[in-house]
Amino acid sequence: MTEFIWRARVYWEDTDGGGVVFYANYLKYMERARTEWLRSMGHAQSELSEKFGFVFAVAEVKLNYRRPARLDDELSISCVPVPEGRASIRFQQVIRRGDEVLVEGEVRVACVDAKTFRPRRLPDFIRIHDGK
Amino acid sequence: MTEFIWRARVYWEDTDGGGVVFYANYLKYMERARTEWLRSMGHAQSELSEKFGFVFAVAEVKLNYRRPARLDDELSISCVPVPEGRASIRFQQVIRRGDEVLVEGEVRVACVDAKTFRPRRLPDFIRIHDGK
Amino acid sequence: MTEFIWRARVYWEDTDGGGVVFYANYLKYMERARTEWLRSMGHAQSELSEKFGFVFAVAEVKLNYRRPARLDDELSISCVPVPEGRASIRFQQVIRRGDEVLVEGEVRVACVDAKTFRPRRLPDFIRIHDGK
Amino acid sequence: MTEFIWRARVYWEDTDGGGVVFYANYLKYMERARTEWLRSMGHAQSELSEKFGFVFAVAEVKLNYRRPARLDDELSISCVPVPEGRASIRFQQVIRRGDEVLVEGEVRVACVDAKTFRPRRLPDFIRIHDGK
Repeated sequence: MTEFIWRARVYWEDTDGGGVVFYANYLKYMERARTEWLRSMGHAQSELSEKFGFVFAVAEVKLNYRRPARLDDELSISCVPVPEGRASIRFQQVIRRGDEVLVEGEVRVACVDAKTFRPRRLPDFIRIHDGK
Repeated sequence: MTEFIWRARVYWEDTDGGGVVFYANYLKYMERARTEWLRSMGHAQSELSEKFGFVFAVAEVKLNYRRPARLDDELSISCVPVPEGRASIRFQQVIRRGDEVLVEGEVRVACVDAKTFRPRRLPDFIRIHDGK
Repeated sequence: MTEFIWRARVYWEDTDGGGVVFYANYLKYMERARTEWLRSMGHAQSELSEKFGFVFAVAEVKLNYRRPARLDDELSISCVPVPEGRASIRFQQVIRRGDEVLVEGEVRVACVDAKTFRPRRLPDFIRIHDGK
Repeated sequence: MTEFIWRARVYWEDTDGGGVVFYANYLKYMERARTEWLRSMGHAQSELSEKFGFVFAVAEVKLNYRRPARLDDELSISCVPVPEGRASIRFQQVIRRGDEVLVEGEVRVACVDAKTFRPRRLPDFIRIHDGK
């Protein structure tokens, strides 16, 4: 099992009038972490789409909000990918501020054709080490 | 059981480079529907916060993405609230384009103190008809 | 001179931790008004792009922020289009809450090729009545 | 004259269905650069608001869009602050991809009371070296 960590700072754009991060915006941090995990293996999504004609589309999301993040917070976003079938990846993702867990999430991402959005088999060059 | 429906149009701001609505933005539509459901009962959240010192904080989200929404789509967002305990409401929410189901969601919202974010009992004037 | 008016409600998604609408988000309201002005003449941008291969790209923005908008505010966004040269339109746009002017803006939009982003002449079917 | 540079990556959240960064989102990058310029002098805005009761509110924006930014682009955002009167700062900001200028902007920010949004004199501890 490989855990990938990405960091993000909370800016005004992320907060809402309640003084905390708007609940949808945690999904932005999680997406950045998945994108950077992919980049860490040498793959930029703009290239995957142009060269290979596929994109990753989110199919399922589960989120548990434990504590709110606030302006100026430094967050770490973890990302543990597990293959699920031949056409999708399930990511376990946790957003923390220091040791505090703020949001726990699970995001299933499907590999789909960039034009038709139909499911496609994950390419072999996207390898996920599942610790076995 | 009361179903409340709110409508939204997809604008450029909602889409991403994949040509579809960015996955986090469906949560914005769902939030608007919950806010308008509350307003339909006479309650604006800015007033609830100022007069009564509480806000609704999202505690849990589950989303299933069936089909993508695209620029210019007219969406309907349903909202079926069910009380859960004394301090939270669970909303079943479906986003449709015509008869097509695009996204199915479940959102649990907790009543919390506007400053401390500690749980608070739902006020009596927020009445949810659960069909019994 | 034709003035087109569109309405928008302020939701949590629009506000920031300062308790007011985040400064970039007024541009979303202005974009909605321009899109709806175009739709009022029978043109959806998704169709313009697919059928005619062009999009409108913003080339210049000027904004004066007079007063902040807040959660639950009902805004009206005006839109007065004036042709500027053969390939662009200049919009005068004012965001109001009732009679109060909140934001005054000027937005120049260029007609560009949807793929190359090179300037293109405005199609004849987009007619702007400039009061002459 | 001090030029401060901040970097940002373009993620899916920033792009729109035209395949480029949504025009309002460049203002997010510019805000991050201003916030980090302030932080580089030891000031976090959450503290300024809590301890000293003021926030920075944007009063004017001018933007010239030269070329679009796209998914995965690495951007640099410059920030040259110049005091303007006793209660505001004017920032010259340029967004580049490598040597290419993408967006040129000017943003006037006013120091205002965090509650009333009335103008306040800039505190002495926010010092802007204007090269004289």
